Amino acid sequence: MRPQEIIEKKRDGFELAPEEIAEFVRGVCTGGWADYQIAALVMAMFIRGLNEAEGETLTREMLYSGEVLDFSDIDMPKADKHSTGGVGDKTSLLIAPLVAACGVAVPMISGRGLGHTGGTLDKLESISGYNVNLSTDDFRKIVKRCGFAMTGQTERIAPADKKIYALRDATATVPYIPLIVASIMSKKLAEGLDALVLDVKTGSGAFMEKLDDARQLASKMVETGEKFGVKTQAVISDMSQPLGQYVGNAVEVYECIRIMRCDESAVATATVDLSLELASRMIWLAGVEDTLKDSRELAAHALATGLALEKFRLNIECQGGDPSVCDNPEKLFETGVNRIEIKSSRTGFVSSIDTLAIGNALVELGGGRRLAHDAIDHAVGFECVAPLGAELKEGDPVGVLYCRNEGDAVRKISDAYSFDDAVSDIPELVRDVIPAT
Amino acid sequence: MRPQEIIEKKRDGFELAPEEIAEFVRGVCTGGWADYQIAALVMAMFIRGLNEAEGETLTREMLYSGEVLDFSDIDMPKADKHSTGGVGDKTSLLIAPLVAACGVAVPMISGRGLGHTGGTLDKLESISGYNVNLSTDDFRKIVKRCGFAMTGQTERIAPADKKIYALRDATATVPYIPLIVASIMSKKLAEGLDALVLDVKTGSGAFMEKLDDARQLASKMVETGEKFGVKTQAVISDMSQPLGQYVGNAVEVYECIRIMRCDESAVATATVDLSLELASRMIWLAGVEDTLKDSRELAAHALATGLALEKFRLNIECQGGDPSVCDNPEKLFETGVNRIEIKSSRTGFVSSIDTLAIGNALVELGGGRRLAHDAIDHAVGFECVAPLGAELKEGDPVGVLYCRNEGDAVRKISDAYSFDDAVSDIPELVRDVIPAT
Repeated sequence: MRPQEIIEKKRDGFELAPEEIAEFVRGVCTGGWADYQIAALVMAMFIRGLNEAEGETLTREMLYSGEVLDFSDIDMPKADKHSTGGVGDKTSLLIAPLVAACGVAVPMISGRGLGHTGGTLDKLESISGYNVNLSTDDFRKIVKRCGFAMTGQTERIAPADKKIYALRDATATVPYIPLIVASIMSKKLAEGLDALVLDVKTGSGAFMEKLDDARQLASKMVETGEKFGVKTQAVISDMSQPLGQYVGNAVEVYECIRIMRCDESAVATATVDLSLELASRMIWLAGVEDTLKDSRELAAHALATGLALEKFRLNIECQGGDPSVCDNPEKLFETGVNRIEIKSSRTGFVSSIDTLAIGNALVELGGGRRLAHDAIDHAVGFECVAPLGAELKEGDPVGVLYCRNEGDAVRKISDAYSFDDAVSDIPELVRDVIPAT
Repeated sequence: MRPQEIIEKKRDGFELAPEEIAEFVRGVCTGGWADYQIAALVMAMFIRGLNEAEGETLTREMLYSGEVLDFSDIDMPKADKHSTGGVGDKTSLLIAPLVAACGVAVPMISGRGLGHTGGTLDKLESISGYNVNLSTDDFRKIVKRCGFAMTGQTERIAPADKKIYALRDATATVPYIPLIVASIMSKKLAEGLDALVLDVKTGSGAFMEKLDDARQLASKMVETGEKFGVKTQAVISDMSQPLGQYVGNAVEVYECIRIMRCDESAVATATVDLSLELASRMIWLAGVEDTLKDSRELAAHALATGLALEKFRLNIECQGGDPSVCDNPEKLFETGVNRIEIKSSRTGFVSSIDTLAIGNALVELGGGRRLAHDAIDHAVGFECVAPLGAELKEGDPVGVLYCRNEGDAVRKISDAYSFDDAVSDIPELVRDVIPAT
């Protein structure tokens, strides 16, 4: 079948047959379809739509375009979580050791930061020596030995997605739910999981800014996971302000280690709340405990007793990193980095935070990447001092910027904060759970 | 402006501003837009549509993406005709010398055959030595010297169209009227014309099979021509059977020279009728005569008195070809070519001819090209013996195939002919004229 015939069919609004979608995904992987043919079909899919059957077939074909991991030799349930990406969202770094400490294996395949959102792999590379490019074999061994491993997407996991996503990014075809679902789920389902918890962000720093869109995406992903035999739940969480105390790479690892060390000034934050919410759902879905409440208690206990930190230390050793950061997290701060207080422009209550603007300001300083091959400065970061609702006097710090050359980031971050004379409503951290539980 | 922003706007169904269309065309020419971004926008244009203003801007930007010829130093009106392409459609070869003989300059920029339709340049190259790759300067000189010249589209004429058309061909976005209009008219308007006659084909061998589609396309092209200050008319002509006596490259030149030589067995055909129809409209629009009737008489006279043949002979000399084909057209037949009669499968009247199938059968024998860089066998051809309505006995010839290796062309061409026991309605050669005159 010529690519043109398949493109023409979707162009005219017809449903594609499973073998036509299979042919497309095969063409993407073999190079039988040119980039411009892929882009044309994806645009036609975006505008004309994909129905449920087409979406499911696309996910399946993208999933089986590559290797599906098999951890059947590991005698533990397997679970993972996926986040749609946020600013200061470092929950993976906490959840993986925490859930592993509770007896659930976490084979976590993560991404790098792109645009205003951070990436788990970049954060981990702040730890001297830490290797995020594991072979499938080493990945499996490390999961077996310490209960979790964190690595990048290899060429062999959902290769069709890698190609299609890059083209979508360049052709304004990212924000369409069936394509997003196929992209995320084809990768996650390749991990050979029993349970999956999705963290769909909503708010000024989220990809799906509106709550309704986030709900729709979450429902579709949950449906898809269940169809493929994976117990799946989604948490819709607030991203109308950066999550927790820090945004950046090294500083987010710093925050997580301090939480796992139970440092008093670190543990009472949204980072901990959301991590426990997601971790306990993973533990519950994986069948370790019968109730969510018990799962949450188990997770809180693993955190409070230092079991999570010990898992993390073991993982760092296994992945070639310097485990002494667990004892001395200040090591993560590089010398020669400026520390600039950003001050409140007026007296009042913090009424809104343009989280996207903060993410973008850090990207411009080198803390993230605009293009997939940009290098990163792991030391760039921002400490969030004043959360939504905080009462400040003019000149009080809203936060602290860590960077080498500030550029106009101080103004941009300062402008991201709005103030009001009274406290306004602050969104709940967990906006919704799908299915409702 | 990033390509993604412009693509997104059309993706969501909004009208593009003139500067956005200009930015797109500029990106096509400079390479600032990647092929997949062009393909994505073109697909969005196809599905969401372009309104009149957008179509006109696109035509204008594509036109001015390259050189616009200036023949103001030639003291004759300038006219050209364009055909949407057919099987056996060799009218350009007759019209150019005929119209030039009547005092109208014809600066004809033609194409090569692609798919089932032939191309004027390929036909001309059947004449030994004939050069269809003229520089702009030589093109101008030859138009001045002999009243017409025939050349290929240079890199400098509407370069954006060349790129966009190739991508449309590969991404199933060819059949959309505003894109077709922009493609055709950006090239034709670059010829610096006073008058333009369009031959829009309809029927089984035409690109626009349905009469209504052909009418719509014709109206849009006429409107566009007039908006750009060129007197424009369109003739909708029948392509439910091959035009005239021959289909192929050398054989079509052979047919035309015999017509210009006034060989009795060649002059009473649809080739002559349609050529005179189109030529006389060019002469009339160019202002040589006041009425269409007088223009037709003038053209018929130029043909009957051998003036057209003398123009053609001069042109062949100017373009480096062997002018003796004008005296001895049999020269065009190569040795070593088989001549195979294709016989009627039954007794009856020819009721329909699958013209597309005949075109495709010849392409497979090397008479045309499937891909833009395929080589051509100029000797491959088909002589149409039995037109629509002809009464045949089983075994009578429907036509004669000229080829080196027949493959399964005999069966394919034979299958293209359907028969009936009674004469069915035969479509008029000229189905409509726009605007009605």
